[in-house]
Amino acid sequence: MSETTILSMEALTRRIEAVFRKGGLSPQHASALARVIAAGERDGCKSHGVFRVEGCLRTIKAGKVSTDAEPTLHDDGSAVLRVAAGGAFSRAGFELGAPALAERAKQLGLAALVINDCTHFSALWPEVETLADMGVAALAMCPSYATVAPAGGTAALLGTNPLAFGWPRQGGHPYVFDFATSVAARGEIELHRRAGNPLPEGWALDSSGQPTTDPTEALAGAMLPFGSHKGSAISTMIELLAGVMIGDLTSQGALDFLGTTTLAPQHGELILAFSPERFAAGRPGDPFARAEIMFEAIAGQGARLPSQRRFKAREGSLADGIALTAAEIGQLDRLEAQGLDAVA
Amino acid sequence: MSETTILSMEALTRRIEAVFRKGGLSPQHASALARVIAAGERDGCKSHGVFRVEGCLRTIKAGKVSTDAEPTLHDDGSAVLRVAAGGAFSRAGFELGAPALAERAKQLGLAALVINDCTHFSALWPEVETLADMGVAALAMCPSYATVAPAGGTAALLGTNPLAFGWPRQGGHPYVFDFATSVAARGEIELHRRAGNPLPEGWALDSSGQPTTDPTEALAGAMLPFGSHKGSAISTMIELLAGVMIGDLTSQGALDFLGTTTLAPQHGELILAFSPERFAAGRPGDPFARAEIMFEAIAGQGARLPSQRRFKAREGSLADGIALTAAEIGQLDRLEAQGLDAVA
Repeated sequence: MSETTILSMEALTRRIEAVFRKGGLSPQHASALARVIAAGERDGCKSHGVFRVEGCLRTIKAGKVSTDAEPTLHDDGSAVLRVAAGGAFSRAGFELGAPALAERAKQLGLAALVINDCTHFSALWPEVETLADMGVAALAMCPSYATVAPAGGTAALLGTNPLAFGWPRQGGHPYVFDFATSVAARGEIELHRRAGNPLPEGWALDSSGQPTTDPTEALAGAMLPFGSHKGSAISTMIELLAGVMIGDLTSQGALDFLGTTTLAPQHGELILAFSPERFAAGRPGDPFARAEIMFEAIAGQGARLPSQRRFKAREGSLADGIALTAAEIGQLDRLEAQGLDAVA
Repeated sequence: MSETTILSMEALTRRIEAVFRKGGLSPQHASALARVIAAGERDGCKSHGVFRVEGCLRTIKAGKVSTDAEPTLHDDGSAVLRVAAGGAFSRAGFELGAPALAERAKQLGLAALVINDCTHFSALWPEVETLADMGVAALAMCPSYATVAPAGGTAALLGTNPLAFGWPRQGGHPYVFDFATSVAARGEIELHRRAGNPLPEGWALDSSGQPTTDPTEALAGAMLPFGSHKGSAISTMIELLAGVMIGDLTSQGALDFLGTTTLAPQHGELILAFSPERFAAGRPGDPFARAEIMFEAIAGQGARLPSQRRFKAREGSLADGIALTAAEIGQLDRLEAQGLDAVA
C-alpha cells in the first residue's frame, strides 16, 4: 500500500472544496478556501495546508463564522476600499476586493483595502502575491488573538499579528515576506513541548509573567514579540491600524469573542497597495529594474531572499504533483463523508 | 564657573539658527534645521541634538547639499504628494508637505508624501509627531547608507533604515515609535569601542563577513539587522519603497554618492498618512478611544509605551530649560564665529 498519494493542484483543490461543501459552506466560500489551502500545501507550507481544514470546520460548527454571507465591495471613490465580509471567511472578500484595490492604486498611486468582519486563518502571502501579480507592491497586516505579551509586559495582549509584503518581479516570483511579529509561532512551542525540549531564551513568559523556557508553562503564559521592543511596537501598530482604525476587533477582542484559540480568529484586515510606476513617474530609473539590482546584491552575498523555499516547493508541486500522506488523505475522506459530525 | 548653561527652547533654536546662517544656509533651511535639532536636544535625544550641527556644516562644506534650494510641492490630485527638495536638507520640504499630506489623507482616507533629492540627518519622530498633531496616523521610512548586511549575508548593503509611526492621542503626546532597523546604532558600536567592551553577539560582522564581537572589526565590517531575517526583510522593504519606488537613492547608492558615512546621507523619504476617522467611518467604536484602551492595557502590565523617556525629558526641558555643557556651548560659539572654517 502506497504511503503517499500524489494529487494535482486542481485535484487537491476539488477534494478540499468538496469537504467544505459538505461542511455547509456556500460554493463561493468553499471554492475560495479550497484554493488558498491547496496553495499552502502546494508551497510546502504545511501549517497553512490541509492541516487547516479541520479548524475551519470546527469554526463553522461552533457557529463563529457565516457559511454563506456574500462579501460586498464599498467604494466611495477615495483611496480606501472596503469589503464587508459579513462574518464569513476572508478569502472571498479578498478575491472581490483585490482587483479593485490594484486598479485604485494604479489610479491614485496608493490605495488601501479594508476587509471588515471576516474570519481569517490563512497566511498573508497569497494576498500580497496576488496583488504583486497585478503589478502593485502590497503591505498586508491583521491582528490575531491575544497570545503575545508586549515587550516589558507580563501577559498576553497582542496577537501574533502577521505582516506581509510583496513586490512585483517581472518574469519570476515576486519578492515576498510574510511573518508573525511574535518571536516564534505557537505551533513551534507546541513542537518543543512534544519533543520534550526546552525553548530558547526570550521566546515566552509563564502565567505569572516571568521568562520561561518550559514549553508547557509558555503555552499557559504568553509568547514574546520578535526583536524585543521594536517588534512589540510593530505589533502594536498592527493592532491600531488593522484593528481599531478600521473599526474591527483587536487581538484581545477576538479572543474575548471566541473564548478560545482553537477556532479561526474573527477580525479585520488592512492591505495597502502601491503603484511603483506612479511613485517613480518622472524620476530617474525604472523601479523594477532597480529592485532587481538590489535582489541580486542580496543573493550575491549568499543571503536568501524570503519565500525562496516556498517557491521551490511550488515548482516541485506543479511539476510532480502534491504528495499527501495516507493520514492526510484519510482525514479528507472522513471529513468529506461525515462533514461537521467529524469534528469536535 | 558654571558647568552647564540653561537655554530656553526658543533661545537654543536661535543660537543654532545663527550657526547655520553663518554656515551659509538660507533663512528657510537654517530655521527648519535649527528647530528640529533643538527639538532633539529638548527631548534628551543627544544623538539628534546639538551634536548634529557640525555634521550638517561638514556636509555643506563638502558641497554635498544645497544651501538654498526652495522645496516645491507637486500635487496632481492623487494620493501621492511629492516634494522636490532640490538637493537641500529635508526639513523645509517636510514642513512644506506635511499640512498638504494631512489634508489629503483626510480627504482620501490615505495619502503619501514623497520627498525627493533631500539630505536627511534627523530622526523621523519629529515628522510622525507633527502629522499626529494634525490628526492623522503616520508611517515614515527612509534608506540611509550601506552599513548593514542582510540577514545571512556577509557585507554592508542595507542602511540602518529607520521606521517611525505615530498615532494621535487627544490631550497627550501621540503614540510614537522610531527605530533603526539595525540591531544597534553605529554610535553604540563606537561607544563599545571607546570603552574597550566587546559587543553582544549578533550585532555585527567583520570585514570578511564573519560574526564578530570586536567593535573595531565591526566598524570595518557590517552591522546586522534587528530581529534576524524579519528585520532584514523590513529593511529591504524600506529600500524598495523609500528608495527605488520613489526614484531616489538606495543606501548603497547614497554611500556611493558620498563616499563616506561622515556626511549626512542624501536620498528620499516616504511618509504615509492615514485618517482614522475616515477608516473607522460607519464602524462601531471611536478609534481614538479604542486605542486608549490598548495603551492602558500595555502600560497597565508595566510595559513602557515607546518614546516615554523622550516625552518626560521634553516636559523637563519646557519647564526648566535645556542644559548644555560648557563644551557644547563652546562648540556653538566656535561654529558661529568661524562658520565652515571651523569644520574639517
